Amino acid sequence: MDKLRFGAGVWMFQQFVDRYATDAYGPAVSTIAAIDRAGSVGGIEVLDINYPFAGEGSSDGSDVSIDNVREALKRNGITAQAIPPHIYMREFQMGSFTNPDPAMRRKAIDLGKKAVEIAQALDAKYVKFWPGQDGFDYPFQVDYARLWDYAVEGIAEVARSAPRQQFAIEYKQKEPRVQLFFSTAARTLLAIEDMGVDNVGIVLDLGHSFFAKETPADIVQLVSRRGKLVSVEVNDNWREWDDDMAVGSVHLIETLEFLHALRAINWQGPILLDQFPFREDPVKAARSSINTIRTLNSLLDRIDLPALAAAQDKQDALEAQRIVMEMLIGTGVAEATR
Amino acid sequence: MDKLRFGAGVWMFQQFVDRYATDAYGPAVSTIAAIDRAGSVGGIEVLDINYPFAGEGSSDGSDVSIDNVREALKRNGITAQAIPPHIYMREFQMGSFTNPDPAMRRKAIDLGKKAVEIAQALDAKYVKFWPGQDGFDYPFQVDYARLWDYAVEGIAEVARSAPRQQFAIEYKQKEPRVQLFFSTAARTLLAIEDMGVDNVGIVLDLGHSFFAKETPADIVQLVSRRGKLVSVEVNDNWREWDDDMAVGSVHLIETLEFLHALRAINWQGPILLDQFPFREDPVKAARSSINTIRTLNSLLDRIDLPALAAAQDKQDALEAQRIVMEMLIGTGVAEATR
Amino acid sequence: MDKLRFGAGVWMFQQFVDRYATDAYGPAVSTIAAIDRAGSVGGIEVLDINYPFAGEGSSDGSDVSIDNVREALKRNGITAQAIPPHIYMREFQMGSFTNPDPAMRRKAIDLGKKAVEIAQALDAKYVKFWPGQDGFDYPFQVDYARLWDYAVEGIAEVARSAPRQQFAIEYKQKEPRVQLFFSTAARTLLAIEDMGVDNVGIVLDLGHSFFAKETPADIVQLVSRRGKLVSVEVNDNWREWDDDMAVGSVHLIETLEFLHALRAINWQGPILLDQFPFREDPVKAARSSINTIRTLNSLLDRIDLPALAAAQDKQDALEAQRIVMEMLIGTGVAEATR
Amino acid sequence: MDKLRFGAGVWMFQQFVDRYATDAYGPAVSTIAAIDRAGSVGGIEVLDINYPFAGEGSSDGSDVSIDNVREALKRNGITAQAIPPHIYMREFQMGSFTNPDPAMRRKAIDLGKKAVEIAQALDAKYVKFWPGQDGFDYPFQVDYARLWDYAVEGIAEVARSAPRQQFAIEYKQKEPRVQLFFSTAARTLLAIEDMGVDNVGIVLDLGHSFFAKETPADIVQLVSRRGKLVSVEVNDNWREWDDDMAVGSVHLIETLEFLHALRAINWQGPILLDQFPFREDPVKAARSSINTIRTLNSLLDRIDLPALAAAQDKQDALEAQRIVMEMLIGTGVAEATR
Repeated sequence: MDKLRFGAGVWMFQQFVDRYATDAYGPAVSTIAAIDRAGSVGGIEVLDINYPFAGEGSSDGSDVSIDNVREALKRNGITAQAIPPHIYMREFQMGSFTNPDPAMRRKAIDLGKKAVEIAQALDAKYVKFWPGQDGFDYPFQVDYARLWDYAVEGIAEVARSAPRQQFAIEYKQKEPRVQLFFSTAARTLLAIEDMGVDNVGIVLDLGHSFFAKETPADIVQLVSRRGKLVSVEVNDNWREWDDDMAVGSVHLIETLEFLHALRAINWQGPILLDQFPFREDPVKAARSSINTIRTLNSLLDRIDLPALAAAQDKQDALEAQRIVMEMLIGTGVAEATR
Repeated sequence: MDKLRFGAGVWMFQQFVDRYATDAYGPAVSTIAAIDRAGSVGGIEVLDINYPFAGEGSSDGSDVSIDNVREALKRNGITAQAIPPHIYMREFQMGSFTNPDPAMRRKAIDLGKKAVEIAQALDAKYVKFWPGQDGFDYPFQVDYARLWDYAVEGIAEVARSAPRQQFAIEYKQKEPRVQLFFSTAARTLLAIEDMGVDNVGIVLDLGHSFFAKETPADIVQLVSRRGKLVSVEVNDNWREWDDDMAVGSVHLIETLEFLHALRAINWQGPILLDQFPFREDPVKAARSSINTIRTLNSLLDRIDLPALAAAQDKQDALEAQRIVMEMLIGTGVAEATR
Repeated sequence: MDKLRFGAGVWMFQQFVDRYATDAYGPAVSTIAAIDRAGSVGGIEVLDINYPFAGEGSSDGSDVSIDNVREALKRNGITAQAIPPHIYMREFQMGSFTNPDPAMRRKAIDLGKKAVEIAQALDAKYVKFWPGQDGFDYPFQVDYARLWDYAVEGIAEVARSAPRQQFAIEYKQKEPRVQLFFSTAARTLLAIEDMGVDNVGIVLDLGHSFFAKETPADIVQLVSRRGKLVSVEVNDNWREWDDDMAVGSVHLIETLEFLHALRAINWQGPILLDQFPFREDPVKAARSSINTIRTLNSLLDRIDLPALAAAQDKQDALEAQRIVMEMLIGTGVAEATR
Repeated sequence: MDKLRFGAGVWMFQQFVDRYATDAYGPAVSTIAAIDRAGSVGGIEVLDINYPFAGEGSSDGSDVSIDNVREALKRNGITAQAIPPHIYMREFQMGSFTNPDPAMRRKAIDLGKKAVEIAQALDAKYVKFWPGQDGFDYPFQVDYARLWDYAVEGIAEVARSAPRQQFAIEYKQKEPRVQLFFSTAARTLLAIEDMGVDNVGIVLDLGHSFFAKETPADIVQLVSRRGKLVSVEVNDNWREWDDDMAVGSVHLIETLEFLHALRAINWQGPILLDQFPFREDPVKAARSSINTIRTLNSLLDRIDLPALAAAQDKQDALEAQRIVMEMLIGTGVAEATR
């Protein structure tokens, strides 16, 4: 990472609702207004933009055109990074690519292809699939082998239809479906292998990795060594749920290690914020996370890399701790343990 | 439990939404229509009815009167069991009784008092507080001692204002607030002590108890021995989240033990279903859970109570297992372990 | 599964100790005495036998020969199923295949090769690696990419040295190392791919799968479709730790689904018990689990397979629930939900 | 906290074993040798010393006298802080105060009284009960109400026998018993109430609080406001198990908040390390944690307390984050979010 670059999911600047506060945490915000909010953060260069767009007044987004979006991006100096189609709304409540109804699976595939068109029209880097309704709720509800085949075949068909388009799957353990099909990095890599295409990779969401009880820095190497790391998204949580909180607010040391891992693979892409600041100002929340990342990154500039490498050669926990604590909170720790 | 009696939360028959499927899992359902659905289940005798009511067409429920509700209950042979005021909607997103703004804390208290009026008008047994926005999201965000005082004082004030009205607090670990104040049974009992009133008790939601990593059958004794068990609600989950699934669908044995504990304290109240059947027919989902409970209860009729008591006297795990498995899945296990 | 066949880990009949009860839960039990105990269960046909053996009086097992073991097996009508070398004792506390010290990695590989000899001498089906010290404890302690290479290369070298010998890796999330390298089925499958050998597969331990927050029945298909399911071990836990409890004692329904999944792939191998009955008689504990499994299996004989297949075709949660509850606890549920 | 004072559990400097590395992670270490190790750390002023003592050569500690211990403490400038009797070894595997056998419950009570004698002989501040075998393993294994009575009555009897002696209970969720009776702070406070004595309080172990999914800083206020905070122990873990790792190594921010909470109640007692450095030098591990705590404490000297109080008045998450991040990792965050 020669230079940190930032992006965000556009939803971070839109309206939040949940199953209790059904009157929402604030007013509706169109895709256009959300892009303007993103622009006001300062430092956001790219956006991940859901499709269909959120309309100004319409419920189906029909009053926002691609040209409107392109224009809004342009005036904010932002480019489109990814297009995730809405494969997790009401109509896909029983699943998108794994829906039991073949007509709905077809619809998901068609929406995936439509997302390719939008991505190309907006010059977005990848089409993102987040199949939040694919999976199951109850024991015995599904035939797991068939679920696997549906998930693999559906995404493979979209990927084959646009061989020069990059795709990426964002895995998560659960929510809204009680158990999601694409739950961990390793499982998603296996499914991608089965797709038999080379244009599908992974979006590694730091919070999803915490939630999956993975070690995020380890997942960076696992995915990138297989050439499948398409994008990274960041946030934090209490490790029990996808709380989508400010970066580093709970797992500061592991967030630092995640950034260290990105530097180690020479990650050149942007880092995308994926937060749900239900009760905070999203613009300030974005600035706060960007500043945390920048500060952590500058701390990493000070790290004694040869010493860390030597400690890791020996898997020396105390010495590694010493180096990290020295970098993070000052030199006090350094003296005493020697 | 001489005879099993059932109830439900009326929301189980209404519209579900979540933070992703913002277009909802189905159409809006008014309180009146939901009562009719509850009536069609067969076997539901009481309902827990949120206030303000969900309107037929209005967004604020102003087109549904208490008389309308009373009439709907009557025609379905149902009585009101509890009134939970909406202290977790948009306006209370920063908390109800623990809101940092004194005006909002006042508003929560006033809404609590209003709920008393509604409860009395509908002859409901208790006013239920489920303070789903009371708590915090981030480390260092709140002064925990002050949060404790706010929670205790707010509910105590409502309780003192209606000394002959029964109140109950439903605890839960998290959601929608990232960390809820009333998180476990034991903590809630301590807070109730601090209230210095005798008309506030606990709603023990089986799923919340699973989610809190409690042993529900143990919590039955803990709360009831202190005279604070006002109501029980049932559902199931994967123990990591409040999934609000069908009763017994994941934790069958612990659900059986919970029912056994209710029999042991001679629980006479109804058992209320609290499910969120996002993707299922709620009427069938309710019937299914009622039948599971009835079947488990009839299995308990067959249990060899003296043998179980003898096993528990010795804390004999294998013998207790033998008795439970014999009751649950047949006699095969019985022979071999003797 | 034409006919259920059972086995066990021989450790189930030996001495247990933990970090607190350092004076152990009972007296030391040699490998020979443990085999005799296993024989007294009735129904145990195969054993998974750690190497080095536990001696009668010696601390290093030097007073128990292969011939002694063979003889003990023979007199009990038992055959050796697997040989897991002790790669998790004191000397390997910093890891076996991933130990930072090349001499220790070599020692682990050599011990693996020695286990092949033992397996062949005892005609055991596979050599089992359970690398319980391979992984890390702290953030920043290891270079994850190097850890991956060490794990892959070490096991691959052993596997290549005995190309006609079957090997299997038993994954687990943690313990004794705080974070284990082979943590989930999917991750282990990826590592096996990287080994570039075809004689390394997976031991699917039901409790480890619960602990890893996997869906065990799904993992059966995931591993078996790749031809990597070498063995299955069973037990139960509270899903937060590898408690190694009696089969079905907590997760009865998922255990049933796991057995259903084994039948679906026509599993012909034995089912091995892996319990730690710290406070129970291990012989009775084994009988109890065998009877639970037999009873669950006979319940599965009654399942309406076409109806279940139809429900799974539609991913119909309520209908699948109905079928399972009907099978498990009787017919009451069946009528009402129709 | 005018001045930080440190202590440790003496076991931190002794031999570790677990259920797999049954040959232990190192050689046996007597209580005397462990005290000398503690003395070599520098900065350890008090020790928590298990009774019976670990002998030099004997297995029952009979070759180490109270005078030997007193002398070893004296030569290291250390005082005894607490005496925890061994109520979790082999003989108490079915429980100490909650053992089903009245003779064993009596034995636990007698051992508790013996610990009082030792505490008085060594001038220790409190007798600590850590009832690690009290609880249960399986559903239906125990009568929870009776378990409650046993736990309350047993400890109350010891406490009444020595009314001027301070006692403290250290709660933990699980291990070695699968489910521990004294599992959370709130539950333990309720049990202490039921004891009807005023000389029993709580040892708040930071790692146990993480493990119980509590908010440790909140528990500081909960326990101290009831006058029951007898001692604090510190370590860290991955929140899923009592890993007993170096302080702040995973949950740095919550550890900081915990120290902040101790300052807020003007905690004057020592902070005791309770780590299990299985694979590290315990003396260096202790120094490392002491230095981390000292550094975090000096960071807290820099905190803008009025600003934090103002943020907490408003429960302003972003502002609280800003203050914490500014203190912890520098000023970069401060500017941008304003």
